[in-house]
Amino acid sequence: MNVAIIGASGYTGLELIKLLLTHPKFTITYIANSTGDINVQDLHPCLKDVLNIEVSKANANDVAAKADLAFLALPHKTSMSFAKELLALDVKVVDLSADYRLELDTYEEHYCAHEDKDNIPNSVYGLPEYYKEEISSAKLVANPGCYPTASLLALLPFVDYIEEGTQVFIDAKSGISGAGKKLTELAHFANLNENMMAYNPFKHRHMPEIEEKIKLVKNKEFQINFVPQLIPVTRGMLISVYATLKDEVNVEEILEETYKNNEFVRVRKSAVDIKSTAGTNFCDVFVARNKKALFINSSIDNLLRGASSQAVVNANLMCGFEENEGIPKLAYVP
Amino acid sequence: MNVAIIGASGYTGLELIKLLLTHPKFTITYIANSTGDINVQDLHPCLKDVLNIEVSKANANDVAAKADLAFLALPHKTSMSFAKELLALDVKVVDLSADYRLELDTYEEHYCAHEDKDNIPNSVYGLPEYYKEEISSAKLVANPGCYPTASLLALLPFVDYIEEGTQVFIDAKSGISGAGKKLTELAHFANLNENMMAYNPFKHRHMPEIEEKIKLVKNKEFQINFVPQLIPVTRGMLISVYATLKDEVNVEEILEETYKNNEFVRVRKSAVDIKSTAGTNFCDVFVARNKKALFINSSIDNLLRGASSQAVVNANLMCGFEENEGIPKLAYVP
Amino acid sequence: MNVAIIGASGYTGLELIKLLLTHPKFTITYIANSTGDINVQDLHPCLKDVLNIEVSKANANDVAAKADLAFLALPHKTSMSFAKELLALDVKVVDLSADYRLELDTYEEHYCAHEDKDNIPNSVYGLPEYYKEEISSAKLVANPGCYPTASLLALLPFVDYIEEGTQVFIDAKSGISGAGKKLTELAHFANLNENMMAYNPFKHRHMPEIEEKIKLVKNKEFQINFVPQLIPVTRGMLISVYATLKDEVNVEEILEETYKNNEFVRVRKSAVDIKSTAGTNFCDVFVARNKKALFINSSIDNLLRGASSQAVVNANLMCGFEENEGIPKLAYVP
Amino acid sequence: MNVAIIGASGYTGLELIKLLLTHPKFTITYIANSTGDINVQDLHPCLKDVLNIEVSKANANDVAAKADLAFLALPHKTSMSFAKELLALDVKVVDLSADYRLELDTYEEHYCAHEDKDNIPNSVYGLPEYYKEEISSAKLVANPGCYPTASLLALLPFVDYIEEGTQVFIDAKSGISGAGKKLTELAHFANLNENMMAYNPFKHRHMPEIEEKIKLVKNKEFQINFVPQLIPVTRGMLISVYATLKDEVNVEEILEETYKNNEFVRVRKSAVDIKSTAGTNFCDVFVARNKKALFINSSIDNLLRGASSQAVVNANLMCGFEENEGIPKLAYVP
Repeated sequence: MNVAIIGASGYTGLELIKLLLTHPKFTITYIANSTGDINVQDLHPCLKDVLNIEVSKANANDVAAKADLAFLALPHKTSMSFAKELLALDVKVVDLSADYRLELDTYEEHYCAHEDKDNIPNSVYGLPEYYKEEISSAKLVANPGCYPTASLLALLPFVDYIEEGTQVFIDAKSGISGAGKKLTELAHFANLNENMMAYNPFKHRHMPEIEEKIKLVKNKEFQINFVPQLIPVTRGMLISVYATLKDEVNVEEILEETYKNNEFVRVRKSAVDIKSTAGTNFCDVFVARNKKALFINSSIDNLLRGASSQAVVNANLMCGFEENEGIPKLAYVP
Repeated sequence: MNVAIIGASGYTGLELIKLLLTHPKFTITYIANSTGDINVQDLHPCLKDVLNIEVSKANANDVAAKADLAFLALPHKTSMSFAKELLALDVKVVDLSADYRLELDTYEEHYCAHEDKDNIPNSVYGLPEYYKEEISSAKLVANPGCYPTASLLALLPFVDYIEEGTQVFIDAKSGISGAGKKLTELAHFANLNENMMAYNPFKHRHMPEIEEKIKLVKNKEFQINFVPQLIPVTRGMLISVYATLKDEVNVEEILEETYKNNEFVRVRKSAVDIKSTAGTNFCDVFVARNKKALFINSSIDNLLRGASSQAVVNANLMCGFEENEGIPKLAYVP
Repeated sequence: MNVAIIGASGYTGLELIKLLLTHPKFTITYIANSTGDINVQDLHPCLKDVLNIEVSKANANDVAAKADLAFLALPHKTSMSFAKELLALDVKVVDLSADYRLELDTYEEHYCAHEDKDNIPNSVYGLPEYYKEEISSAKLVANPGCYPTASLLALLPFVDYIEEGTQVFIDAKSGISGAGKKLTELAHFANLNENMMAYNPFKHRHMPEIEEKIKLVKNKEFQINFVPQLIPVTRGMLISVYATLKDEVNVEEILEETYKNNEFVRVRKSAVDIKSTAGTNFCDVFVARNKKALFINSSIDNLLRGASSQAVVNANLMCGFEENEGIPKLAYVP
Repeated sequence: MNVAIIGASGYTGLELIKLLLTHPKFTITYIANSTGDINVQDLHPCLKDVLNIEVSKANANDVAAKADLAFLALPHKTSMSFAKELLALDVKVVDLSADYRLELDTYEEHYCAHEDKDNIPNSVYGLPEYYKEEISSAKLVANPGCYPTASLLALLPFVDYIEEGTQVFIDAKSGISGAGKKLTELAHFANLNENMMAYNPFKHRHMPEIEEKIKLVKNKEFQINFVPQLIPVTRGMLISVYATLKDEVNVEEILEETYKNNEFVRVRKSAVDIKSTAGTNFCDVFVARNKKALFINSSIDNLLRGASSQAVVNANLMCGFEENEGIPKLAYVP
């Protein structure tokens, strides 16, 4: 099946290219960014002698002429206008931006005015462990944010056991690639190496995404208190969820039970680390309890399970392929 | 004033040497480790052409003959037998181990049988912001653990405002130097770089130390749920404390008010980082609130404020010097 | 074709497992280490839910019963005795140790007494760019060392142009994975991060390997002066070769010409970096000239092109497959 | 003695502030950058509660009114016009830029037109081991570049023993702080961590500086072939010098003899590392020989010995103080 990648310049664009190059069912027929007129090897020198293709200036009609499905690795706002055009041209879309992840009100409160309201109700939240069926019949999938992916996979199994009215805290740590290629003071090696810091505590836009999805999946409302942090690591994400249980339940069993049929969630017997999931689509999860205090610990590759490989899983499901077709499981270890 | 360093081989021993070498009031007259018979330059090659002194095999009578105060940078258990001898010989002691930090019962539950019970009641917990007066007249100071130092300085100002019966969570991150020089798999560069992981969640021995001191200082009992983590950083520590407030109080003001007269706690207006305190005795603290959800964020150098420079502050107070004599304030930045 | 991996515990063993798991022609039928009696997932936790196979205690007859070709990722000396047995049982061998890389005299001078002298003349040095034909008909391939691979691919094209009698210098930098999993002071994160240092200057055992192969391939003798260094990087290797040219020749052209038909050597227009080859079998090479002074710069993944993926290329050739079957080209970027 | 720091925003400006704050003889009376109107704590948040002083917009008359000596941590070209004014106002100058390091012709070939030609003959090259006497009576000292400092201290002792007409190669590695605070792709953590690369091989402007000084000090001409490289390290520099000796001389003795009376050069018995000099003014040097092949290995802190602490040593000498007054010797270890 022919696919297009729109937004090839960034990290998630590169990861999409790499994943699709070795995918047994998808063929890349179109790659675009905002300017075009460059060979993909000049955009990503690591692709020299690997892929020789011209990057186009993104155009919806060209996509429709060449591909059945498009991955949009675009900034929010840019994404919605392009998705709208593609959907009208009957191209399936996996959108890696935030544009179709939220209900309209939540979106407009935290991002900007929405310009493709019609397609919001048709979009499916692309967290395969919870929306597999809906994704399979969707034309538009909103790929979850990296923090929400790791946080929801950790938290959702326990939502029914958490004492209502108590606070849920998420202490999240991300590698710097999560902030993209942008040159910022924080991303300067001299500032980040041998360092670590929180940013936007209680104010990150992934916080409402987590709250909304918990309500949607479990019909429970919790105040989610989310503190993202940068660690001196390029790729990877580690999440600590802290909550208060109603009872001293068997949390290991709950976790095992929830994910026993899910190929890409691995329940671990000890605290998880970043490297075991880096390079893969796995989400590793571990849980511990201190009387009624709950600690759930998850790890993903922020660029893969938090973006590009989860997008390809979604595309697999949308196209009727096996969920695991071409999806990486071999970690960047050592 | 003449001082001895017992336990010169480890990281905290080296930091003590460096601090005392440039201290205006203290003179190092005796350095020992468990074997002796080595020049300090061979133990720590960075001291070549800086300090030329033989390291002795630790002996209490020799210490008493040469020094008025001794810093013990020894493993727990070893420390108490040596401290006992020194105190009997009228040498003041700053003990960097855990041996005199806890009440007898707590100690024996989490460490081992205590062999110097008589001196426990005379020991003072060396957190200067809360025990300055007691330290000033003490003969034996138990230097706090690194995690408790950063956690207590963050948490104590808010203890009276936290809803009773709610859970307090501490998500703590430490550089690998906190685990000492020991060669372990976790400390191998190939395992730690580009990685991060929790260890001993809810089971670390600093957890009861934090609980006990909160009760001691504030007469409040809270279940402290402590999750320590290793980050790919050599020195530094970053703490997230999460708790639930009774009311939506002005947390910034509470923090400012608590530490307005403390030279070595800096209240910050935004999330703290590790590098701004690395190389110094500062504890940087920041606080944020989301309705009744509380986030307190602190940073220290685990080897200095978490061990050696706090020990020298304690020694300053015990000897009647200014708290800040010879105490570093200039960070390892960039 | 069925293959065995002997020596599964180390980094190169893990890389072999990962490569062969996704290889279209080879099937892993036997994995062994020195103790056996462990599941591969317990040896390498990143393989959980990926590969479920018991690791055996290495036994030559078992290998012969189950596999046509064996990869030996064993320490030198251990390797030769095992290879000898396998060859007698008609199993093809790719040996990743040093045991068959050198002529007998050179080997015994720098390593130890050789216990399988008979097979030395039949072994082929597995540098495919220079020995493709010999490898294709070999039963025993000696996989080159990591430093020699990167150094020879850089240096060989220029040997005929270097002024005879002048010194050739190689300033080589390796990630710590090159030293294996062993717990050493140098490999401790606190010692290696924010650090870098040479080790064994002019005394590393890869120095005679480079000298010998230059003589063998080009029939020229040069004094190779080799200085290996450790960098705060897990995987990757960067080489600077410095030499003096006879004439001010067009070095870019020489390099292009040499490798124009080699899929896994990429000639670069600017200085090479480590990350563009990490995760791949590529060797990136760049050359610059300052009058008669020559600088050749090469980069490889020390665990792949410097060990495991080069071993699989050799196995491909030995079995009549395409050189590039199952060989990775997609770098660990970002 | 009152001193001014002009150019307080960069890394070397910050290091000057830190050095001078604890200096027993110098008092900072004026700090400036190009904009002024900011407190130094807002420029460098690590100075909060350490130094409370307004940063001025740089003005020569203000400097002259408040200080006897000025440190210029300015970009080249900006520096010369400011130095000219200060010298006319009888303020002593230590210039950390390149503006007075080179002879006029060399300077104009590699940098730009010189606008203060008159002061060039009066400037002294501030490498104290070789120009101590001249520095002591100078009004204008040109502080050497970081690469030339480490390269010259390594190479100068051996110049007389190197075979004439042979090539000298310098393989130099610098932490990223050497490139300043500028936000560049290379300095982005995701590009530099787990990476390393050469830049401007044979074309860096420190190459003619090294060549010129060798000729000046030793009256010998050598083609210096200089390859700078970036390593994933914040501060520190490691140099490999490779050359060909006339005879198989005792290189250890030559090195020992050269520096036996120099407090800030430490001759090491094994290969040097970066961390042992980080945070100090030391240059560590080691030498090895393979027949006539020579390897000299040096390490400095690029921001201190390569810039700010060497500048303070020069200021000490210019003002008649002891060379080591206020100069740091305690490394950032671990």
